[in-house]
Amino acid sequence: MAEPLAPGAAIGILGGGQLGRMLAVAASRLGLRAHVYDPAPDCPAAQVAAAATHAGWDDAAALAAFADAVDVVTYEWENVPTAALDAIEAVVPIRPNRRALAVSQDRVAEREFLGGIGLTTAPWAPVGDAAALDAALAGIGCPAILKTARLGYDGKGQARIMAPGDAAAALAAMGGQMAVLEGFVAFEREISVIAARGLDGAVACYDPGENVHEAGILATTTVPARLSPGLRSDAVLIAARILNALDYVGVVGVELFVTRAGLLVNEIAPRVHNSGHWTQNGCAVDQFEQHIRAIAGWPLGDGARHADVVMENLIGDDILRVPDIAREAGAAIHLYGKAEARPGRKMGHVNRVRAKS
Amino acid sequence: MAEPLAPGAAIGILGGGQLGRMLAVAASRLGLRAHVYDPAPDCPAAQVAAAATHAGWDDAAALAAFADAVDVVTYEWENVPTAALDAIEAVVPIRPNRRALAVSQDRVAEREFLGGIGLTTAPWAPVGDAAALDAALAGIGCPAILKTARLGYDGKGQARIMAPGDAAAALAAMGGQMAVLEGFVAFEREISVIAARGLDGAVACYDPGENVHEAGILATTTVPARLSPGLRSDAVLIAARILNALDYVGVVGVELFVTRAGLLVNEIAPRVHNSGHWTQNGCAVDQFEQHIRAIAGWPLGDGARHADVVMENLIGDDILRVPDIAREAGAAIHLYGKAEARPGRKMGHVNRVRAKS
Repeated sequence: MAEPLAPGAAIGILGGGQLGRMLAVAASRLGLRAHVYDPAPDCPAAQVAAAATHAGWDDAAALAAFADAVDVVTYEWENVPTAALDAIEAVVPIRPNRRALAVSQDRVAEREFLGGIGLTTAPWAPVGDAAALDAALAGIGCPAILKTARLGYDGKGQARIMAPGDAAAALAAMGGQMAVLEGFVAFEREISVIAARGLDGAVACYDPGENVHEAGILATTTVPARLSPGLRSDAVLIAARILNALDYVGVVGVELFVTRAGLLVNEIAPRVHNSGHWTQNGCAVDQFEQHIRAIAGWPLGDGARHADVVMENLIGDDILRVPDIAREAGAAIHLYGKAEARPGRKMGHVNRVRAKS
Repeated sequence: MAEPLAPGAAIGILGGGQLGRMLAVAASRLGLRAHVYDPAPDCPAAQVAAAATHAGWDDAAALAAFADAVDVVTYEWENVPTAALDAIEAVVPIRPNRRALAVSQDRVAEREFLGGIGLTTAPWAPVGDAAALDAALAGIGCPAILKTARLGYDGKGQARIMAPGDAAAALAAMGGQMAVLEGFVAFEREISVIAARGLDGAVACYDPGENVHEAGILATTTVPARLSPGLRSDAVLIAARILNALDYVGVVGVELFVTRAGLLVNEIAPRVHNSGHWTQNGCAVDQFEQHIRAIAGWPLGDGARHADVVMENLIGDDILRVPDIAREAGAAIHLYGKAEARPGRKMGHVNRVRAKS
């Protein structure tokens, strides 16, 4: 195994949104320098990074110079163009690896990977055309949900099919892209596990959080989750199986449905995850630092939870509530430095902290 | 009272060391932009600030441009030259105010201020020459300690006088500067209170921490401190009296001696303080954010402690222990991005966190 990166080494971060911003701050706590790559000059991460490159994803010269300037590259976003990744990987390692990216960029690949390692998901079928959709609906039944295979997030690129008559409109909403039909799952709640794997193969998991979504976007995550000890350990084992199968290095977010039959995997994100933001105020080492430790070859940190936390996303006009939240006891505010509050845009979050129950 | 600064506003920070660095990160969490002023191009704070000016303290043009570019100015260091402060204050408010700075820059002024508001310190006398030192020693007795009135920190500019025969050498060590003779205090322990006062006059205090020094430099701070409920409330009242008397805005660090006769004030620092670093991992709002909130006109945050913490400074070669500390359970590492580990140089700190006892 390579030596851990020493103080002063540079961490390249592809994407300069809020996740990149919080990764940059975590890198600084370890004495490392964040270098952000993002086309937008005033992106959130550049405001706290030691260096920034503002260039397009197709700017070969800028990508090469960026790769030369850093010691390892990671990403806050799973849809970085393949050609950009190729250019960077010719110079410097990318962590988590390309396989993890490929699997999570495409719902078909993700479902096949999960099934291949023996994990359960909602019933699903790939859908390329109307005939495939009809066949998939015949097998899975209604209600079901059609999702684009690529580039979906926060509820975008999805269409519900409550009855067979909705099928044509749902398929049209995919805009000709490859899609996946998923059966509805009668779940009691959604949880997520934020887990990490080090360069040495060690695995560490945070306490699972319980998620509530509104309009397809994460609204809150609560720790501790309402979860039996058995399911808690199942959740950890599922995350570890995914990490090991991918020879993964870094933090992963695994969304799980809690059902009567046990846990189903909903989605994996090969990066720090919104449902792990609570770790900033509940653990000695948060998910952002854990990710930086992993990709920098440091030992994984202690993710033990020392407080109870409810994380609430501040979306769009929620930002107007900040003056009130600032007066609340136990409220830790994290804003992202975005100038404009558009509907559905994540502007910040608040971690409400209490002594551990 | 003025409106609180809105997201996107700029906080000017004079001095780019580790305190400025942690202030800059705290500002970012509130959606504010840190603009650091420091002569050193690669100072710790510039690595995490949205903007930086690297120019001398006597560069009138740079100071004016800096003042124009920000909405409020604060400092991480109480020895910013007066002329620089004058240039800035002509353009933009400086918080904490100039009186707080003047009092803490000069031990004579500090002692007079503290006595004037009825607070107890060690016995002291100003010393300008050998005759004054003899007279002071006659009143205070030995052992005693002679300290330069200005620019002393971390045990520098101090000389012990164990017996009258040490007086001449001690005076010579002052290099002709105005000094203060202080009597030794038989104290059980040293504590410090990190307190804050908002622009609206509200006062908030963190739980007092118990400090241990080595070779004149803070080594550890432990919360909770061993302190009776009565002394705990005395400590808070002392801090509040200081803040109100100075019409202070921001965070202050007050070092106190615990003696059989009660609390004595040792020193006040008009800024975030090393002994308050534990708040980063023990409170929803840490001292750095509390300071930014105060100077930005935000409501003060909740400083309630939700965990037990021992803060240890990493000084000089202590940085070599980081790989081991990184494997410890409950250890939160905070490094400062300094390239060179010189003896006595503060390179970082570690907060060891446990669930609240």
